[in-house]
Amino acid sequence: MINAIGRDIPQFVEGFGPVKKYQGAFKTLPEGASYGPPIKAARLGQSKLCHGLGDLFKSLKIESGMTFSFHHHLRNGDEVVNQVLATAESLGLKNISVSLTAAFATHAPMIEFIKKGVVTSLRTSGVYGPLAVALSNGILPTPVILHSHGGRPRSLRSGELKVDVAFIAAPTADDRGNLTGAIGKSACGSLGYAFPDADYATHVVAVTDNLVPYPLLPASIGQNKVDRVVLVESLGDPQGIVSGTTRITKDPVGLHIADTAAKVIEASGLLKNGFSFQTGAGGASLAAAHYVGRMMRAQNIKGSFALGGITGYMVDMLEEGLFGNLFDVQSFDLESVRSIGRNPNHVEVSSDLYANPFNGGSLVNDLDVVILGATEIDVDFNVNVITGSDGVLMGAAGGHPDTAAGAKMTVIVTTLLRSRLPIVVDRVITATTPGETVDVLVTEYGLAVNPARADLRDRFLAAGLPVKDIHELKNLAHKMAGIPQTMAFDGPIVGLVEYRDGTIIDVVRAPNL
Amino acid sequence: MINAIGRDIPQFVEGFGPVKKYQGAFKTLPEGASYGPPIKAARLGQSKLCHGLGDLFKSLKIESGMTFSFHHHLRNGDEVVNQVLATAESLGLKNISVSLTAAFATHAPMIEFIKKGVVTSLRTSGVYGPLAVALSNGILPTPVILHSHGGRPRSLRSGELKVDVAFIAAPTADDRGNLTGAIGKSACGSLGYAFPDADYATHVVAVTDNLVPYPLLPASIGQNKVDRVVLVESLGDPQGIVSGTTRITKDPVGLHIADTAAKVIEASGLLKNGFSFQTGAGGASLAAAHYVGRMMRAQNIKGSFALGGITGYMVDMLEEGLFGNLFDVQSFDLESVRSIGRNPNHVEVSSDLYANPFNGGSLVNDLDVVILGATEIDVDFNVNVITGSDGVLMGAAGGHPDTAAGAKMTVIVTTLLRSRLPIVVDRVITATTPGETVDVLVTEYGLAVNPARADLRDRFLAAGLPVKDIHELKNLAHKMAGIPQTMAFDGPIVGLVEYRDGTIIDVVRAPNL
Repeated sequence: MINAIGRDIPQFVEGFGPVKKYQGAFKTLPEGASYGPPIKAARLGQSKLCHGLGDLFKSLKIESGMTFSFHHHLRNGDEVVNQVLATAESLGLKNISVSLTAAFATHAPMIEFIKKGVVTSLRTSGVYGPLAVALSNGILPTPVILHSHGGRPRSLRSGELKVDVAFIAAPTADDRGNLTGAIGKSACGSLGYAFPDADYATHVVAVTDNLVPYPLLPASIGQNKVDRVVLVESLGDPQGIVSGTTRITKDPVGLHIADTAAKVIEASGLLKNGFSFQTGAGGASLAAAHYVGRMMRAQNIKGSFALGGITGYMVDMLEEGLFGNLFDVQSFDLESVRSIGRNPNHVEVSSDLYANPFNGGSLVNDLDVVILGATEIDVDFNVNVITGSDGVLMGAAGGHPDTAAGAKMTVIVTTLLRSRLPIVVDRVITATTPGETVDVLVTEYGLAVNPARADLRDRFLAAGLPVKDIHELKNLAHKMAGIPQTMAFDGPIVGLVEYRDGTIIDVVRAPNL
Repeated sequence: MINAIGRDIPQFVEGFGPVKKYQGAFKTLPEGASYGPPIKAARLGQSKLCHGLGDLFKSLKIESGMTFSFHHHLRNGDEVVNQVLATAESLGLKNISVSLTAAFATHAPMIEFIKKGVVTSLRTSGVYGPLAVALSNGILPTPVILHSHGGRPRSLRSGELKVDVAFIAAPTADDRGNLTGAIGKSACGSLGYAFPDADYATHVVAVTDNLVPYPLLPASIGQNKVDRVVLVESLGDPQGIVSGTTRITKDPVGLHIADTAAKVIEASGLLKNGFSFQTGAGGASLAAAHYVGRMMRAQNIKGSFALGGITGYMVDMLEEGLFGNLFDVQSFDLESVRSIGRNPNHVEVSSDLYANPFNGGSLVNDLDVVILGATEIDVDFNVNVITGSDGVLMGAAGGHPDTAAGAKMTVIVTTLLRSRLPIVVDRVITATTPGETVDVLVTEYGLAVNPARADLRDRFLAAGLPVKDIHELKNLAHKMAGIPQTMAFDGPIVGLVEYRDGTIIDVVRAPNL
């Protein structure tokens, strides 16, 4: 069947069930009631502490066929997923479904767990590294489900994703299960993606390498939601958990794009007192934040909040008073980890509060501007962030579709070409963010405005910005790099791209490698 | 049918349904799944702000037969309940069920709303003032359900209590629904009893008289859980919301009891580093805290946490370093309101985290000692805190049954007589807290120990404390005041006393006044 952006999607997928068709970014409304996990009771005086994962598996009677969930705040330093799956394998478990909010190179061992039948299903916001290639090749018996950060809490609330055991990597915890990511040798800052798991999973397990005396305060997740605490030697490699300082790009092309993006924001009329902003951790996005900060300083503008994955750069802007608050669902670097533990205006938020479309109102709805990247963008402004030009999985939807839907203005920044391939194309290989939620494309050769936003186009023209038609940019790319060969993607479906509302916006097919 | 403490309770109550029999404090375990409220979605750009309650009722289509919930942090200063019910009446609504976490003299207008059929059902932890007398006289068509503070979040989670509209009195809020009780002209400190309503009600409404710019931080309840914000002129009378400083008793008998209670705690062996403690806001309880503090100071003992309704006295102990933390579900006085807004070790907690027996583990389970009062205690150590010696409703179960069940040692402090009536009796008129969860009774004529706690009895004797048999204390009371006339309570059932686990531990019958 054909969905609202013209993508051909199946009506039914084995191992997933009936497919709900994407109808438009704001067309599908929630139905029914929130999922209610089994009610539990703690036995008075009974210790929650397990010594090692083997002990835990026995204690909770963890069995084949269950669904495990994990969060990705430990990023490429995470060893918890591998440890848990190795324990499952050693106990002979099979047919485990995994929900991991994002997968990195460190999770390459999952390939072996899949080959051995330990893991047979995966939900994630995106995959990097060897696992991505393996998934593209169809290693899983059922397609990987690729969701957004706001879509995941929705699927937990709706019961589309039912978790038997949530493994919460907890850089610090006490023996009753109060836990935080702000301190400890594996400190990672915010644990925001794990919050909904603590509400909806049947069993909630804190896995920690830093057990402290009771009561741990402040706690991100409290003892009333945690059933077991497992002490392990190490959660992972601190070098991979947090990068050092994230830096703005020094590449002149990137700086030029960032400068244009900042001018676009200024010309939009949104840059005024109370301004709210999200940007990624990439060098060009940070550069845009840098230029925006300079404008705010010059015009004495005090912003309201900055949102999202938080970097040291945003921390600096907070501390300087350019923004009143940071809402942090994920702390990208050492500076943001340090800040979240000590600055009361740097607030940890759940992925539900951050971006769930189906709640009382998430923070993305209050964003003025978001600056986002793309692996491809097409003439309908649909954006791809999860597959490369070869159709192979290589990125994450993350908060991309959520912030694009919520923000008053969504700006995509990208070079016109990358590795000599056009980024602006006729039709993206994989659509992750629908064009109706994307307002502006900024490249080094000028910017294009979504035709639905004539208001913005007029403002940019009035400001003397180099406004082009998006077809013009695409043609320029074709002229420079040649018309890319149309690739046939008729292999089996290896991924389902779930829009934040639970409908399927696109599929990923095994590329003909 | 006869329950585990020998109380005759009906099998079925009209308007309530089948009655689950109390089986023992730890015998009934949870069954089934958590209630899942309807899933909601905020419409992008749609304001949540309503100007006045009439506007709100139209906006949410509030109808006859619905269940409204309210919390009692504004205590005897609250005007929100009256305003909401007056709006319901003015719109012709009937048959409203009310869940109000405790009712005070300020809620006397509810009598008229009941007489007019606007309100036909009530759940509360207890009632003070004219409404209490009216309820005792059977003014409601169905019995009032009297629950504990921990029992209420259980009933929301289980779906026994389904709330259509939660009215959260919010001393400060922004227009997206982020809210707090820590600041504002109607500041009341913690909003802990309202937290579960924000999770389980179909519609969540913040009622505020102090609207501040977005985003309000820190927020006790976040915008993702709130559907509407209603601006009203006033939430109530600040004089009634917080009392001035709560003071320790100056009555020599009260001081003597408090001194003995402190010695009991010392002799129990529980008073050591890491000590955790809860006490009420009454003069004698505070005096006991005073003596305990003196011992901690003298012996250089650093406590872990104090819990519960928090008073300035506990704030002083926190600031002095006698305790590391305060967990605050309700702030009793100005000092505690001021502290919760500025001291990071003074932490607001939900009633779920505080005391729900059916979750991953509530804080009461980690209490070493709780000091509690009684309107009566019987020779089986069952305690009454909700009716007077005349059988009329006059108090609240509150956290009494919860802390008694959780604490390692539960100490009841009371004079042997009150208004010339024995407090130690053969059989309490109304059992609210089962004797199996009560360890020690301290009176001015000596103390009695639950026979199940021979360990404590031995310690107290070794410490030279005046240990008596509870029958001895009862006989002494009889000798001094005469054997009280046995009152016949054979009127209709006007109240059901729900134990924290959802079973019925006793009924309240209309007294023969």
